[in-house]
Amino acid sequence: MATGTLRAFACSFSIIFLLKLNAFSCQQFSISLQQPLDCGAESYFDISSLSCVKCGPNQVNSKSGLTCECQTGFRVLVSNGASITCQQCPDVNQGVTQDGYGCIRCPGSVGVNGKCQCPEGSVLVERDVNGNPLNEARCEACNATEPAFSAPDATGKRCVRCEDSFINSSQSCVCGTSNVLAGGMCFPLNSLPTSVASSVIFGQLTLSLQSAWFSSFMYSSAAACLLFSNRTACQSLGNMCVMNMHSSSTINNDACGLYNTIYRATAAQGSSQDISYWRKNLPWLYYGEQLGLASRVLQNEPLPVGFSFKGAQKNTNIELRAAVYSVRGEFMRWENVGGGNLQLCPDTLTSQQSAFTFGTAYKQSCVLSVSELLIGYPEPVFYDVYLVIKKAQEEERLLAVPLLNLNQQFNGQFTNQGSNMNNWYLTRRLMLVDTLSGRENSLSSSPRVIRVASNIKIGFQLVPNTQKGQVYPPLMTVAYSDILVTDPSTQTVTVSFSLEYTMDQEEARIKTDIALGVLGGVAVVHSLLKTASWKRRIASPLIDLQTIMKFLVFYAGDLANVFFIITVGTGLYWLIFFKAQQFVSVLLPLPVQEERFVVYVGCAFALKAVQFLHKLFVQLSVDVFFIDWERPRGKSSKHVEGSGEAKSQASPVSIWRTYFVANEWNEIQTIRKINPTFQVMAVLFFLEVVGFSNLALRDPLSNLRRSPEAYTPPHSLILRYGVASAMWLCIGLIQMIFFTVFHERFVEDKIRQFVDLCSISNISVLLLSHRCFGYYIHGRSVHGHADTNMDEMNTNLKREAENLCGQRGLLANSDTQTFQISITNRLRTQYDRIIEPINRRNGPSRLVDASANPCEQSTKAYHTMNRFLGSVIDHAHREMDYIVKDKLLFERLIGMEFIEPLDKSIFYNDDSHSFSDVIFYGNEAVLLIFDTLFFCVVDLGSQNFILAAVLTYVQQLVFRLIRNGMGRRNLASKTLVDKRFLI
Amino acid sequence: MATGTLRAFACSFSIIFLLKLNAFSCQQFSISLQQPLDCGAESYFDISSLSCVKCGPNQVNSKSGLTCECQTGFRVLVSNGASITCQQCPDVNQGVTQDGYGCIRCPGSVGVNGKCQCPEGSVLVERDVNGNPLNEARCEACNATEPAFSAPDATGKRCVRCEDSFINSSQSCVCGTSNVLAGGMCFPLNSLPTSVASSVIFGQLTLSLQSAWFSSFMYSSAAACLLFSNRTACQSLGNMCVMNMHSSSTINNDACGLYNTIYRATAAQGSSQDISYWRKNLPWLYYGEQLGLASRVLQNEPLPVGFSFKGAQKNTNIELRAAVYSVRGEFMRWENVGGGNLQLCPDTLTSQQSAFTFGTAYKQSCVLSVSELLIGYPEPVFYDVYLVIKKAQEEERLLAVPLLNLNQQFNGQFTNQGSNMNNWYLTRRLMLVDTLSGRENSLSSSPRVIRVASNIKIGFQLVPNTQKGQVYPPLMTVAYSDILVTDPSTQTVTVSFSLEYTMDQEEARIKTDIALGVLGGVAVVHSLLKTASWKRRIASPLIDLQTIMKFLVFYAGDLANVFFIITVGTGLYWLIFFKAQQFVSVLLPLPVQEERFVVYVGCAFALKAVQFLHKLFVQLSVDVFFIDWERPRGKSSKHVEGSGEAKSQASPVSIWRTYFVANEWNEIQTIRKINPTFQVMAVLFFLEVVGFSNLALRDPLSNLRRSPEAYTPPHSLILRYGVASAMWLCIGLIQMIFFTVFHERFVEDKIRQFVDLCSISNISVLLLSHRCFGYYIHGRSVHGHADTNMDEMNTNLKREAENLCGQRGLLANSDTQTFQISITNRLRTQYDRIIEPINRRNGPSRLVDASANPCEQSTKAYHTMNRFLGSVIDHAHREMDYIVKDKLLFERLIGMEFIEPLDKSIFYNDDSHSFSDVIFYGNEAVLLIFDTLFFCVVDLGSQNFILAAVLTYVQQLVFRLIRNGMGRRNLASKTLVDKRFLI
Repeated sequence: MATGTLRAFACSFSIIFLLKLNAFSCQQFSISLQQPLDCGAESYFDISSLSCVKCGPNQVNSKSGLTCECQTGFRVLVSNGASITCQQCPDVNQGVTQDGYGCIRCPGSVGVNGKCQCPEGSVLVERDVNGNPLNEARCEACNATEPAFSAPDATGKRCVRCEDSFINSSQSCVCGTSNVLAGGMCFPLNSLPTSVASSVIFGQLTLSLQSAWFSSFMYSSAAACLLFSNRTACQSLGNMCVMNMHSSSTINNDACGLYNTIYRATAAQGSSQDISYWRKNLPWLYYGEQLGLASRVLQNEPLPVGFSFKGAQKNTNIELRAAVYSVRGEFMRWENVGGGNLQLCPDTLTSQQSAFTFGTAYKQSCVLSVSELLIGYPEPVFYDVYLVIKKAQEEERLLAVPLLNLNQQFNGQFTNQGSNMNNWYLTRRLMLVDTLSGRENSLSSSPRVIRVASNIKIGFQLVPNTQKGQVYPPLMTVAYSDILVTDPSTQTVTVSFSLEYTMDQEEARIKTDIALGVLGGVAVVHSLLKTASWKRRIASPLIDLQTIMKFLVFYAGDLANVFFIITVGTGLYWLIFFKAQQFVSVLLPLPVQEERFVVYVGCAFALKAVQFLHKLFVQLSVDVFFIDWERPRGKSSKHVEGSGEAKSQASPVSIWRTYFVANEWNEIQTIRKINPTFQVMAVLFFLEVVGFSNLALRDPLSNLRRSPEAYTPPHSLILRYGVASAMWLCIGLIQMIFFTVFHERFVEDKIRQFVDLCSISNISVLLLSHRCFGYYIHGRSVHGHADTNMDEMNTNLKREAENLCGQRGLLANSDTQTFQISITNRLRTQYDRIIEPINRRNGPSRLVDASANPCEQSTKAYHTMNRFLGSVIDHAHREMDYIVKDKLLFERLIGMEFIEPLDKSIFYNDDSHSFSDVIFYGNEAVLLIFDTLFFCVVDLGSQNFILAAVLTYVQQLVFRLIRNGMGRRNLASKTLVDKRFLI
Repeated sequence: MATGTLRAFACSFSIIFLLKLNAFSCQQFSISLQQPLDCGAESYFDISSLSCVKCGPNQVNSKSGLTCECQTGFRVLVSNGASITCQQCPDVNQGVTQDGYGCIRCPGSVGVNGKCQCPEGSVLVERDVNGNPLNEARCEACNATEPAFSAPDATGKRCVRCEDSFINSSQSCVCGTSNVLAGGMCFPLNSLPTSVASSVIFGQLTLSLQSAWFSSFMYSSAAACLLFSNRTACQSLGNMCVMNMHSSSTINNDACGLYNTIYRATAAQGSSQDISYWRKNLPWLYYGEQLGLASRVLQNEPLPVGFSFKGAQKNTNIELRAAVYSVRGEFMRWENVGGGNLQLCPDTLTSQQSAFTFGTAYKQSCVLSVSELLIGYPEPVFYDVYLVIKKAQEEERLLAVPLLNLNQQFNGQFTNQGSNMNNWYLTRRLMLVDTLSGRENSLSSSPRVIRVASNIKIGFQLVPNTQKGQVYPPLMTVAYSDILVTDPSTQTVTVSFSLEYTMDQEEARIKTDIALGVLGGVAVVHSLLKTASWKRRIASPLIDLQTIMKFLVFYAGDLANVFFIITVGTGLYWLIFFKAQQFVSVLLPLPVQEERFVVYVGCAFALKAVQFLHKLFVQLSVDVFFIDWERPRGKSSKHVEGSGEAKSQASPVSIWRTYFVANEWNEIQTIRKINPTFQVMAVLFFLEVVGFSNLALRDPLSNLRRSPEAYTPPHSLILRYGVASAMWLCIGLIQMIFFTVFHERFVEDKIRQFVDLCSISNISVLLLSHRCFGYYIHGRSVHGHADTNMDEMNTNLKREAENLCGQRGLLANSDTQTFQISITNRLRTQYDRIIEPINRRNGPSRLVDASANPCEQSTKAYHTMNRFLGSVIDHAHREMDYIVKDKLLFERLIGMEFIEPLDKSIFYNDDSHSFSDVIFYGNEAVLLIFDTLFFCVVDLGSQNFILAAVLTYVQQLVFRLIRNGMGRRNLASKTLVDKRFLI
């Protein structure tokens, strides 16, 4: 290795002293790129040094460019492996021998390659039979007649027996004028048309071009097939028909025309494999031409083996096998379909293989470069595809898979592109890439047009009402793209391969429609009832526009529930029945069939939003009043300003208890039976982290974790909705159970706390949600006074804990503090009359009472109202008396009071705190469903659970802020409690 | 198509009437699977009907199984394409002619194939030169001597010139005894060892087996290379050396030994391409054997072209080109590396191609089946890999990529497996799958052992301190797996292909260490200062264990900040400098180099958690007292129980204002300067929906959206941390600005609201966070009374709004209501003495004062405290007086008071509401950093932002609940406000 060191030294030397400018000079170990074809005629490519090296004198490089050979007219004098020496042949008449080592006199002329040439039908002899070189080469004619039947072989050096067809046709090795010489064979005159239409029709480009392949081999294939029953020729002719898209017309001299001519002419030969469309010796290309045959083939008889997703008899494997033929008609092999032979897009094996798992919606598509196709597919390969059917204890059978070629023309019509199955012509034999038929001038020229199977789809259809996973025979649909090759390096073609599973969705659709109709009817009745109840509660008998609007709003809410039930039911149905089935009995709707479902979800959401906004609006305009029962306890001395004189008057009752209660009421307005943010987080966690979202994939697997290498099928919108809504409802339900059963009992119940607070603070709450209907929380302290100091408060609390005082209820010896109230019109009128100055404060200023201070007026109104309501509760107003009674069960159920409060108001006992209906707490169902639908609608639009979660959170936040802010404003204006105390 | 209809009819017929049992009988269009090789000797496979068909009489199937041919001793009588007729040759001595159509007498014996046979060196002649058949075949000997130099050709039918080596060695076509006949060539005696070690050593299996390939061709390759300079032979010998893992030792008759022998013997020929290790005519296999050559090759000189991620000079394309040789030593082609030639794992083209984008950490690995390898790689192919270097205005250069073969042995040692670069022996030439050298008996037998390049890695190293993206020449590391083939269909091998980019991380590490040291020192000082401040505030001069513990806790907090700053800084550094750089100047640390960083993050989190828990604990034990300034306004008449006599006494001051204030204080305990849930949601939104998480991928792209087909490189932990923490801090900052600048000014400021509430409710708040330090909120009403009715409250509020009353401040004409207070030890002692009965209530019951009611006692204590504190604020206690002053700027900065309150307590004006330090609001920095670290730590552990977000939300929820619940308990116990009013 001393040279290495030396060289390194020399290298440093050159850097330091010579300061060569070229930065590469010392870049060690780099070479320049030279190709064998770049070396020029007088150099060869040295495969060892990967560079061009000059040949010796009188030498040129060989065809491969890797060695040198003697130039024309020179022979090899010496050869020692590495190099040769060449010498010119001395005589002009001499040619170089075939082996290149000698010179020899030629019998005739010397060819352009410097070697002797013989006329056609003769062979060149340079050595005798023992290998001794002759002085002069000889041209010997081959004896073409019997019994020799000889002709020169491919190299032109020996006479060998000529092709059978010559002998059969002409009893000689010369084809003779009465016969037809085509494609290297000799045919007797026959029934086939002598001139064939060797054009290929590219339907998409409306281009028809003369194909070199067709003109070279079409006639000979057809003739050899018909006359000699040459099977390879028959296959080759069939391949040409396939390359011409199976298109047939009245012309009988194109590829398919010739095929059909032969098909008819050989009817006597019978059929192969007992299949009537498969003529012996011919390839099977067509199912018959009868109308309606396609539907009979595809939907008459199910496969004998059913598919099953789970269990011991699990069978999801679709095994396809193809008989593969070369374009020349040679049978190449049986090939298992999968691993990329029909899938043009490169992908991992696992991914490609998962196409053939029954029930997995598979779609792979990619963009291929035309130049790659030209290199990768010099010749088309033809596939006859079969489905392997394995039954226990029987041998494998192969079921021919029919092919629907969308590019097929029948008398110029694209019959297969329509959706009417009865017009289809099913065929057989598929090719992927045809770069051969588009070559115009010669077989080695580059093609003008190539044809690519750009869309291959295998469709399975489930037998209706099957319980055993039975399917009809699959149909393979192929669409070809014709590409005019102009610039292969930039041209591309999009190809796709997909499997599709369908079942008849008509029944499901009808069932959904029935459910929708029935539930919609129920919803109408329910909405009418609600409207009637509302009419009674506002004490208005008229049916006016407002009533109709109200009915429509109620109906929107009910209809939203109907749509929600139906969509969740549908989602769960597909989720459970598709994912959990053992034997396949249902298959998912296709994406186009999901549109109806998406519309339903949209309807549900829109209607629910109307209901939700209406609820919100109603809640924001509810009437509230806090009745303070506290009466002054003594006199306070007050310095009358200006006089300096102390004057005794009733000491004021502190307003702070009212502030406290109002503040608490303000705070419980947006509490809910669940924690909405936790809900969003939990749903997101289960869907995305635990992996429930994987249940929405269009495949039969029901596991939550997928390996990252595995193929990920697209999501089904219905399944996404099913999983997401089920998750929302489940977690919502669990939260609700947790909060009602555990949290409110053992930790904190905000609603009960509020009722207790009323009692302790000696304040009652009157809530009027409708004109004549509302809620009353009785908060009169059992101790008479609550406006006191800490000692007394503690004592009071203690006494109550020890049961030393009366009960809190409105009636004696009753605990019931909360009531639904139906008040008489008279009471309401009085209420409105008193409240009027307060409301006026918020309205525009009027000329009436312009002198009065509006603030003072409203404080006065507050005191009047306080006194008035107190006296009403105390039965002090005889004309506005009330009775207390229980609500009937049926009244509770339909949410409507039977008795109209004409004479006396009615207080219904209500232990279930239904006053929470005017805050979020009592409307959990509406809120939860609204949130669920919001989440699902965002997800259906974006297919992104994270985005849906974030937006749902923001939605909840915004509506909570609105409800809190507006509710606070309403509370302040209705109760006169200053907004600043509602914090 | 009538036959089709007929057949369908027949089929129905058979169903209805014959009730055949076999379900398949009527399964239309199905066939049974038959393979060409299954047909048996007397049938052939009909490629048209895909079934076996019996041959005619006296016929057997051909080798391919697709046609019939005459059995031995029979000639073809008639052949018409589809079928043949055979006839036995009449005479026993006759053989069938070579073309199979005639019978001929043989000169010698008839071979087993029924045809005539000739001895070696002779050719069989059946026709004369004109193609006429002879009556009797002749065997003619080829003349081996000059000038004929002829021998039978491969088919044995003609004499042709024999191979050059025979002529050169022996001047004849017979090799002669003085020469060596090997591999079909004839060599003169030479310097090579006559017996070669044709064994391949499989180092992993410690198995050495006789290779049929080596024993067939090793000697002849070596001899042809040495003697005839046959380049193909030289390459073939080199390939054998590669197949033997480049391993060399003192033995000189194995493949590499022969290579080295020839290398030395041909030193005179000079070198190729000016590379001293590349001998002319020989393949270049080794870099020299000098110690340290590897580091000189790899780290001496950078590539002349720099890489750049962005801009007009963007250059991320790594172009590799390989000279491909067959195992026989033929040069096949130049091939662009990529698209699967070195990548054994199948994958999409886009994905495979993205391996060669500079800066993209690429790793592809998969499990391959041995049986597939056996089919796909019958012969190994050899690659000499070069890196293409394109400089503007210069021609392409190819730089040889050195190879580090981990399986190479040098005198039995695996020298390349160590990490010491100086011991490495770099080589050239790579193969992927070798199923050839493991064949023991014959070349067609199945191999006993195969060798697979299971791990190919291309590594680039950045030149230190480069600004132009300069890198050193890449190194290709390959590890082979030896697999003993026992059951190919179940055996598998894991292969991987990766690209790795490294730079020297030592500098970054040192800088980090320095920053850590400096900031750690600052942290110590800061913690000492805090401890001193704490000591002053608890008025304890002793340094005890508690002090040390306190110091450690403070230090934990400061150190956490240091680690946080350093990790965020590091993360942002890599994020910005790696992703945004134009010319490559930094490359990401490898996953193993990230461990240190992860430890830092872990430290930051653990220390921050300590600080956070400590803060929480301190907050939960703070002393609070509400001082009620309200004095009774009049007398109330109270019915003394039992006597029925009314007695006048001071009317009680309502406790409800205190309840209100306490309730509000309870509510603001966990409010923060940001909305923490919104924070989590926003971070999740930006990371996962907008796509910021894609910035953490190990590639140079900085776009947020990736196409789903593109290759997804692994995430870098440092970048994940950088993106996530930056996102947290940014959104946190934006929220903080929004809340302080907009929300608190224009919507709601909870802290100011609370202070206002104190003022309006005539209640002051005393907070003692330390023994002698705390906060005071002055809430004395400017109206004298607050315990009044709505009229007066409204009047008061209105008067204040109209500036008709005094200012709220503690000092006259001052607005300052909030103070930091340093109280004297005396005051604190008094405070403790008064509070004692309250605290005892919570402690275990003691015998002292057993008679007294604990509840009454504590109420009494409450009143005493109220009076006492009121009088202190009113300067009524001369010995516990206080002064009000401003804090010095420096005091504010270091958070420590300079003056010790020995004689008088000191009230520092504090307009910035720093009492919020005892609630969450004032500790936003700690909370935000804790949340950030929690999020990042969960993400580093799980690499899942969604999980991190969910857990962070749960963490926030849990700590909020704890803070609220425990804080409420503390408040209730310290202020005597019943827990039931803290709702």
